[in-house]
Amino acid sequence: MKRRIKISLLFFVIVIAACNTQENTSETSKQVESVFPKGKLLDSPNFTGTVWLQMMGAQDSTLYARFGNVTFEAKARTNWHSHPGGQVLFITEGKGFYQAKGQPARALQKGDVVEIPRNVVHWHGAADDSEFAHIAISLNSDEGGAVWIEPVSDEEYEQAVNK
Amino acid sequence: MKRRIKISLLFFVIVIAACNTQENTSETSKQVESVFPKGKLLDSPNFTGTVWLQMMGAQDSTLYARFGNVTFEAKARTNWHSHPGGQVLFITEGKGFYQAKGQPARALQKGDVVEIPRNVVHWHGAADDSEFAHIAISLNSDEGGAVWIEPVSDEEYEQAVNK
Repeated sequence: MKRRIKISLLFFVIVIAACNTQENTSETSKQVESVFPKGKLLDSPNFTGTVWLQMMGAQDSTLYARFGNVTFEAKARTNWHSHPGGQVLFITEGKGFYQAKGQPARALQKGDVVEIPRNVVHWHGAADDSEFAHIAISLNSDEGGAVWIEPVSDEEYEQAVNK
Repeated sequence: MKRRIKISLLFFVIVIAACNTQENTSETSKQVESVFPKGKLLDSPNFTGTVWLQMMGAQDSTLYARFGNVTFEAKARTNWHSHPGGQVLFITEGKGFYQAKGQPARALQKGDVVEIPRNVVHWHGAADDSEFAHIAISLNSDEGGAVWIEPVSDEEYEQAVNK
């Protein structure tokens, strides 16, 4: 009898352990899938940190728009820059920030939209603990492309994200 | 001995059944979350079926862009229409179609991008077995808004999606 109870308890423990292991496996293996293709690792002096870019268009230059998917590793960001024609960001993954020069940084997450006016100097990038991805569409590109300025220093970045 | 084997087998079956039940529960309760807000139910003669719209901008009319998130229930679609300034669709959920007049319909899914040239008459909407959502950004809006034509008939829709 005592032996049967021990065996029963042993099997009970096995049931719980087996099911929990399956749950844990599915939790640790759960990954946030990109909505849009990540593209290629970007090698550019206009960014700090690890960034991927998938340019998507426009194929038709008369649309006067340039758009693509940009993915930032944690802490990665653009340099300070501006767009003569303005830009819109559609955040599809993770957490990040947008900051216009002289303004507090705005925290961003999946589902947010940022409308960036013409010629406003700004940066955008990931939070310090999360990857971040957004569609970026530069508008009225017949008026010129992005005007790149200097990098966002670590000090500026820390101050912006930790306020 | 025989009884112990029967008990062991019984517990073995219970382990498998219990763990599979947990998996099935998590599968049936898995829902696709919207990336962007669904917005309000649209009441417009320019669409067939159930459609939601969340307009997002531009707040700044000098960007010459209008953009929002559009969600179509299965079989819902726009009427035939065109954009003087062109349009871009960023598909964020589900399955659907885009068709330019006189061309075969193009099947679309999450992660796809559609660049719609100026003045091309077209429609877009959900597949017959899936919800469908996309960001739509109309460009060069200083040249005018969408030009709405007639509904996509059930016959045209069936022909397009079943080719």
